[in-house]
Amino acid sequence: MHYSKISADHLTALRSIVGADHLFTDTTALTDHGHDETEDLQFFPEAVVAPANTAEVAAILQICNAAQIPVTVRGAGTGLAGGALPVAGGLVISMRRFDKIIAIDERNFQVTVEPGVITEHLQNTLKAKGLFYPPDPASRGWSFIGGNVSTNAGGPKAVKYGVVKDHVLNLEVVLPSGEVIWTGANTLKNSTGYNLTQLMVGSEGTLGVITKIVLKLQPHPTHTLLMLAPFRSAESACAAVAAIFQAGVVPSGLEFMERNAIDWAVRYVGETPVPIGPDDAAHLLIEVDGFHPENLYADCETIGKVLENYDCGEIFFADSEAQKTALWQLRRNVGHAVKRNSIYKEEDTVVPRAELPILLKGVKEIGARYGFESVCYGHAGDGNLHVNILKGELSDQFWNEELPNGIREIFTLVKKLGGTISGEHGIGLVQQPYLDIVFGPAEMRLMRGIKQVFDPNGILNPGKVLNL
Amino acid sequence: MHYSKISADHLTALRSIVGADHLFTDTTALTDHGHDETEDLQFFPEAVVAPANTAEVAAILQICNAAQIPVTVRGAGTGLAGGALPVAGGLVISMRRFDKIIAIDERNFQVTVEPGVITEHLQNTLKAKGLFYPPDPASRGWSFIGGNVSTNAGGPKAVKYGVVKDHVLNLEVVLPSGEVIWTGANTLKNSTGYNLTQLMVGSEGTLGVITKIVLKLQPHPTHTLLMLAPFRSAESACAAVAAIFQAGVVPSGLEFMERNAIDWAVRYVGETPVPIGPDDAAHLLIEVDGFHPENLYADCETIGKVLENYDCGEIFFADSEAQKTALWQLRRNVGHAVKRNSIYKEEDTVVPRAELPILLKGVKEIGARYGFESVCYGHAGDGNLHVNILKGELSDQFWNEELPNGIREIFTLVKKLGGTISGEHGIGLVQQPYLDIVFGPAEMRLMRGIKQVFDPNGILNPGKVLNL
Repeated sequence: MHYSKISADHLTALRSIVGADHLFTDTTALTDHGHDETEDLQFFPEAVVAPANTAEVAAILQICNAAQIPVTVRGAGTGLAGGALPVAGGLVISMRRFDKIIAIDERNFQVTVEPGVITEHLQNTLKAKGLFYPPDPASRGWSFIGGNVSTNAGGPKAVKYGVVKDHVLNLEVVLPSGEVIWTGANTLKNSTGYNLTQLMVGSEGTLGVITKIVLKLQPHPTHTLLMLAPFRSAESACAAVAAIFQAGVVPSGLEFMERNAIDWAVRYVGETPVPIGPDDAAHLLIEVDGFHPENLYADCETIGKVLENYDCGEIFFADSEAQKTALWQLRRNVGHAVKRNSIYKEEDTVVPRAELPILLKGVKEIGARYGFESVCYGHAGDGNLHVNILKGELSDQFWNEELPNGIREIFTLVKKLGGTISGEHGIGLVQQPYLDIVFGPAEMRLMRGIKQVFDPNGILNPGKVLNL
Repeated sequence: MHYSKISADHLTALRSIVGADHLFTDTTALTDHGHDETEDLQFFPEAVVAPANTAEVAAILQICNAAQIPVTVRGAGTGLAGGALPVAGGLVISMRRFDKIIAIDERNFQVTVEPGVITEHLQNTLKAKGLFYPPDPASRGWSFIGGNVSTNAGGPKAVKYGVVKDHVLNLEVVLPSGEVIWTGANTLKNSTGYNLTQLMVGSEGTLGVITKIVLKLQPHPTHTLLMLAPFRSAESACAAVAAIFQAGVVPSGLEFMERNAIDWAVRYVGETPVPIGPDDAAHLLIEVDGFHPENLYADCETIGKVLENYDCGEIFFADSEAQKTALWQLRRNVGHAVKRNSIYKEEDTVVPRAELPILLKGVKEIGARYGFESVCYGHAGDGNLHVNILKGELSDQFWNEELPNGIREIFTLVKKLGGTISGEHGIGLVQQPYLDIVFGPAEMRLMRGIKQVFDPNGILNPGKVLNL
């Protein structure tokens, strides 16, 4: 694909669309919009533009499409797969001015929202009305809902409530041609033509620019119980996960943390009221939620009995909101803690949940063979294990040339176990070289064909997902 | 598109793939495979083939793709939109020999099943192991799970548990080229490339032939309560629907029946223990399910209080399994009852649920203006109203030439209310002329492009969905 540079004439045209205050070409802006939360990667766009509405996005895309200028759409920049990195230069479209909750429809349990709204702000606004939008990625305090849709994000609550895709009813999308479409309808059921909504969810900015989002809501649960269960071995913790579901309980959170993950998080957040025993090799953080506290106590009792069979130590129950917050803060900060301490690569492996012990064992075995250390944690209830590989003292040569072979072995194991290479982060830039492990030539041809249908000039997020 | 007829050489080749016992060209077979449950429509294929496995399907498709022979894939033929009608002649592939439940994975709450398994048989087999696959279209006693996937079917339980698409994890699909792909992974989360799984679900046999299906399961609820609530006006029944959810209860069934729907069903099934009062203008059939009976009683109490505000008569509680069966039998037989008595057209309208009273009023107003009678019933909890228009004494000229304008008015109202033209039946043949109401040129271009990517020669189910 041959791309053009942004000319002075293009800048004039873009400025006339968004106003001089919303077009940036200064070094600070180009630097700020050239990295996300992925490793230590940095690229530079030629310009950044911050449109205010759908019509402005359409006008911008028409210019870029006609001139063959690469366009990278950017939310809050919290991505972990490099999906928002402007690897081909060109224009970054920041969605930060799309920050309005357009309509909360309490009668139909729906919300229409712009993509630049921060996920947690949306959730809190809804909660004040008794409404629940469950997906809660660890970044929810910063990430935009549009980025969550673009990556089909997950989070702890996915185990009970599903991921983002399970909550998206309809999307307003601007195509590279400047045409504006709605992908579906504001209904719970829809058997009308091909599912363009689900094609957009998780497409990481490669097919169109999402400008409005209609989400399905539900009544907000009124009660939660949270417990932390220590295990003598990480594998028995993993093995306990499937057994909880088999006992008939569907927790609203079921998180796994290796000992070193929790240690890093404790060091990062400082003082914590959570007791960690010297022999604890791993923990499960387990939440149940609902409307009837007595059922939740019964669920916890069932879970406790299941865990006894897996060499579980003494279970710690959070008995105040402060303790619940402290426990979740530990879990949510593992990623930050690792990142603060070392260059790292994060692999977002996912397998059927009962295969978790085999996956964990395999990851450690591969690490031992290649000579890398990993911190493993994640959404065990979904079989979604984040494998953080630490650079530490490893050489650049090893990191860049040998490690990819080790990652390839991990992903090959994942595939063999019925899983895939990203559960909730997306493919973006950094997982793209491994796509061949899960897709053959026919699947790749279909996906490339779909890309061509939506974006015939290939201007949207080039180099991502399919490397087109 | 130019299609070929099936030649004697083609028949020989097809026979060599499936064996002489599984290729049919006799009049009975061609007649039997030329209609479904849609109105009184009948077409004729040139041959019918019943392959036994994926490799045979691949070999068949290769022949048809090379020779440009139209292929219509057929499940149990219970479709209501004409999706399985071989309108261009050619070959019908019957999936009836794909009748195996391949693997029930109790550890991971998943099942891998062939598309020709009858839905209710699958559900009963799973239930015996405490596992639950919720989607239950009215046809579940006859329909194949593959057809359910192809149309993205729904049913009463969708209001709590979602439609078929919410339960499909992964699909094995044969492309027209004969290539075999898996669309995704056997995981609860997946952010790996474009969502080919959801693109196949609801594509009505126009993109590929589904040969294996991996479904997500959950623990089977142990208790249900069922009640029938009579209303003095159909509109107040519809208005009560949204209020139930606003009170914090999510029923596992919330069905609406106009008085004439229930009358037709009573006449059709004969004796019924259900009391129907002379002034009852409409009924809601409401089910709650779960694991704790005491919560279900509390839910029913909440629902009862809500309904008092909507001029509800005396609520009938089913107090035995026999009464529950009788109530559901009434609801499930409305469609059959209507069909037995008149040529009809069924419109599968769906709107955000709080808009139901406006939709119902609009349908009746349009009917009065055009002079047609309609029987309305359906999944009110989802906003999914089936509008059965009766031919009765209407002229063929009215039926074929004027009625489509009335249907167009109904669908235009549906669209205006945020809804769409099919909630669970699909577009198939009969709704295809109305697609322009919900999709503009850009959406249609995208869908046509997707069809072209999957099926470049246009052999799969020509004339359906997009009329390609």
